[in-house]
Amino acid sequence: MAAVAVATRWWLLLVLSAAEVGVARALQPPNILLLLMDDMGWGDLGVYGEPSRETPNLDRMAVEGMLFPNFYTANPLCSPSRAALLTGRLPIRSGFYTTNGHARNAYTPQEIVGGIPDSELLLPALLKGAGYASKIVGKWHLGHRPQFHPLKHGFDEWFGSPNCHFGPYDNKARPNIPVYRDQEMVGRFYEEFPINLKTGEANLTQIYLQEALEFIQRQQAAHRPFFLYWAVDATHAPVYASKPFLGTSQRGRYGDAIRELDDSVGRILRLLRDLSIAENTFVFFTSDNGAALISAPRQGGSNGPFLCGKQTTFEGGMREPAIAWWPGHIPAGQVSHQLGSIMDLFTTSLSLAGLEPPRDRAIDGLDLLPAMLQGRLTDRPIFYYRGNTLMAVTLGQYKAHFWTWTNSWEEFKQGIDFCPGQNVSGVTTHSQEEHTKLPLIFHLGRDPGERFPLSVASIEYLDALHRITPVVQQHQEALVPGQPQLNVCNRAVMPARRTSPVASSGTCPSPALESLASCPGPPDCCLRPTAAPELEATRLVFPPCSSYLMAASSRV
Amino acid sequence: MAAVAVATRWWLLLVLSAAEVGVARALQPPNILLLLMDDMGWGDLGVYGEPSRETPNLDRMAVEGMLFPNFYTANPLCSPSRAALLTGRLPIRSGFYTTNGHARNAYTPQEIVGGIPDSELLLPALLKGAGYASKIVGKWHLGHRPQFHPLKHGFDEWFGSPNCHFGPYDNKARPNIPVYRDQEMVGRFYEEFPINLKTGEANLTQIYLQEALEFIQRQQAAHRPFFLYWAVDATHAPVYASKPFLGTSQRGRYGDAIRELDDSVGRILRLLRDLSIAENTFVFFTSDNGAALISAPRQGGSNGPFLCGKQTTFEGGMREPAIAWWPGHIPAGQVSHQLGSIMDLFTTSLSLAGLEPPRDRAIDGLDLLPAMLQGRLTDRPIFYYRGNTLMAVTLGQYKAHFWTWTNSWEEFKQGIDFCPGQNVSGVTTHSQEEHTKLPLIFHLGRDPGERFPLSVASIEYLDALHRITPVVQQHQEALVPGQPQLNVCNRAVMPARRTSPVASSGTCPSPALESLASCPGPPDCCLRPTAAPELEATRLVFPPCSSYLMAASSRV
Repeated sequence: MAAVAVATRWWLLLVLSAAEVGVARALQPPNILLLLMDDMGWGDLGVYGEPSRETPNLDRMAVEGMLFPNFYTANPLCSPSRAALLTGRLPIRSGFYTTNGHARNAYTPQEIVGGIPDSELLLPALLKGAGYASKIVGKWHLGHRPQFHPLKHGFDEWFGSPNCHFGPYDNKARPNIPVYRDQEMVGRFYEEFPINLKTGEANLTQIYLQEALEFIQRQQAAHRPFFLYWAVDATHAPVYASKPFLGTSQRGRYGDAIRELDDSVGRILRLLRDLSIAENTFVFFTSDNGAALISAPRQGGSNGPFLCGKQTTFEGGMREPAIAWWPGHIPAGQVSHQLGSIMDLFTTSLSLAGLEPPRDRAIDGLDLLPAMLQGRLTDRPIFYYRGNTLMAVTLGQYKAHFWTWTNSWEEFKQGIDFCPGQNVSGVTTHSQEEHTKLPLIFHLGRDPGERFPLSVASIEYLDALHRITPVVQQHQEALVPGQPQLNVCNRAVMPARRTSPVASSGTCPSPALESLASCPGPPDCCLRPTAAPELEATRLVFPPCSSYLMAASSRV
Repeated sequence: MAAVAVATRWWLLLVLSAAEVGVARALQPPNILLLLMDDMGWGDLGVYGEPSRETPNLDRMAVEGMLFPNFYTANPLCSPSRAALLTGRLPIRSGFYTTNGHARNAYTPQEIVGGIPDSELLLPALLKGAGYASKIVGKWHLGHRPQFHPLKHGFDEWFGSPNCHFGPYDNKARPNIPVYRDQEMVGRFYEEFPINLKTGEANLTQIYLQEALEFIQRQQAAHRPFFLYWAVDATHAPVYASKPFLGTSQRGRYGDAIRELDDSVGRILRLLRDLSIAENTFVFFTSDNGAALISAPRQGGSNGPFLCGKQTTFEGGMREPAIAWWPGHIPAGQVSHQLGSIMDLFTTSLSLAGLEPPRDRAIDGLDLLPAMLQGRLTDRPIFYYRGNTLMAVTLGQYKAHFWTWTNSWEEFKQGIDFCPGQNVSGVTTHSQEEHTKLPLIFHLGRDPGERFPLSVASIEYLDALHRITPVVQQHQEALVPGQPQLNVCNRAVMPARRTSPVASSGTCPSPALESLASCPGPPDCCLRPTAAPELEATRLVFPPCSSYLMAASSRV
């Protein structure tokens, strides 16, 4: 019912603004443009306090739109975060998680056979019902195999790749990551789409920009509402920028990448204005997870005043930069303290299109239009998961940690650090610490950096716990987990043919964990599959565990 | 010669703008309004990324003016910082430092007989030469004894106190800190000027605001240029706010104090506009040192992404929020990456008044008008001192640490932590580590948080060192230190009459150190003086060392 009410309100607003923008346009629901950055941190934008202040276009977007300082992703890693955006559901519902390790993060390396299940309803498929043309530009990350590709899940067009630009690989044991136009592979990173790891030069952001501009122009000419999902990845290590931007930032190569993305956003917004469709285009800017401090300072960004980064469920891992922009509708220069989630982009987009969210499943996304258009705040929890483990929850100003963990001592001793320079005793732990009975509670207003847990003896602690407990209970009781898609050590999602189990070690660094966490499964989880996720079986004899280990290390 | 050139340029600008603002006003140099906060951190303003974004007036001031993200104080503690602002000189030149402990910070507790030497030329005294009426509102901190008071050093008016609002004291062994109007004591904190430590309620910011508004109105009516130094201290622990602001912040009591200060700044700027003198009033907002993380989270602020806080020479201790505002002159919405210093406010103010800085002494302040009015950047070093020890220097993007120290293990083990939650191995050290031969060098653009020292084997390190070394050599060779005023353990600056040396301990926690660092001097440094800095000898039998220890602890 709530969704219907919102939809009604939207049409009312549309009619009210029709006088200004012309009746013809008012009959068309607003275009939706989601700008999703990769590993960009809360603290990477000038408007969020980055000292070099090299994001004039994004800062202007915030001045013209609405800033959300309390906006969260649904997972501190890329694949589950993106699944959550497009399904409006927590990854534990959609299957984008693991069950084969406690508090394990996982994504979709090219070796994995899992991906976004057909049973999930994705935003582009739903928007089609309201006449939207849709395109994804950039990184998909919801499965390599053809059945998982964007055009099988509602997108009309795709230019980009199913994975990050990791590599280069040797193309014997392991192929380079492919790049697609729609259903056709048009090349591979480091081959047809070069990335110079030494200089950091790559033209990819410019290509992604042109894809966006061309799509917008084409849809505008066709008078068709569009959904553009611009999922660029220049700020994911290895970071890159095109030649005109290389060496221009005070922040080094990472800053060059940010500057090019900022410039691109500026050009996209300018095109919307030039085409006179700015007032009919809802634009939202955010990132998939916190900055990868593991790659800092040369290849990783900043989470501002927050604790730790990517891979963790501290604020630095999951609080995201977020700007909403819709001239003439969202009032300019506003800040909303609504607790927002990347999953809200699903529900909000449907609401913009006058559609209702699916009723046959749990949807976690909230419609943000009341917050954006009327400044209304809705009380709602933010859940922080790693794999199938509920690590923490935020409700109002209070955040309760049920489990604390950064990474294992083993990894940490190898120099893999998710919280460089930060160490909060009993909080940034290297063993998995359970606090389910007496959670660690922080007041995020007074202590956004999660450095000072409330005393368990305080009335404030008891009050907060009293409010949080039923919300968590209700969530957990009602939760129906999806079939896990990212269990790397599980045959169901890994290539079937067993070639050479690595018997030398009882544990196995899994390529799907994007970290060196040891895999608790049997040693045969480290197969050398020959099945071909990219339809090129001959090139797909994957390397042994040791090389995954090296690959993961090289990303640090 | 440079100073003369600048002065000339100013008059030229004045003449050029005369047509707009009226000839009568143009003949008058601009009013100068310095808004100095106490222990407010770089990360405490919305415009610098504070997540609660509760400083709309300061954020607007930045939008209407110029933001300096790379602005520094001259010392990580209050008294030396304020001496530097008013003299344009490093504290080591003016005498506002110690020689009786390596890398010791020191200030002016009421027990000290030292203060700002008569030989120092203070900004208000110099501005008098250009016809300025001057007033200090709030905290002086350059000496308790009458000969050091503001009216003896060039100010025409004073409402405020010689020290922070520490207390309450018992008024037997130790009096409460006095409050003055001009040369007359008009009461004491916790007595005539109540501060409720339990509720945090105090009316002081409102009183200071009224003092400012009244002074501005009076000078405007008299058509006299004014210099107003608004040195409020609500954000120094124990933090306070007046009733209408208490409980209104998402950040707790510290945030309440910030909100009241932000509101006050808004009201002051509004008055300037209402009186039509905004275009003839230069306003600069900054803070005396980094946020006191030792008092966080309830009584201390945020240094954003920077390392550590007050008392340290890491960025969190010395990089300050800074906004310049002068409508019609300083272009709106600009960010200047000029490395700025609190000492520049001295030279810039003189330049605004058409005056030259004194030629008979070294002046460290730079004239910021070229940066503000023409966007010009000047290459200059920032020196970071603790006491008489040059701890670090920044030149361009590179910062070299010659000494690293936070506080002693002894203090740290008692829970006194200048860097809570932060720990950079080999950097945030608890023993004084010397790096004078091979300094630790950070690239502040890529790594503003000082977490990743450059490799000493890198070309970048060698290049940076090559540039920094001669600048430091030149500085040190030319340096003529002033007579130290803050040597608490030294008879020259402590009450003369010896009463009861504390023989029970060979070391003495000194009240002048505002921390519990043990005093290296002889045990008789812990006197119980009966001499009267506040002219009330009968009330001034100071307590034994142990009570200083407790007093310092209570401020944590």
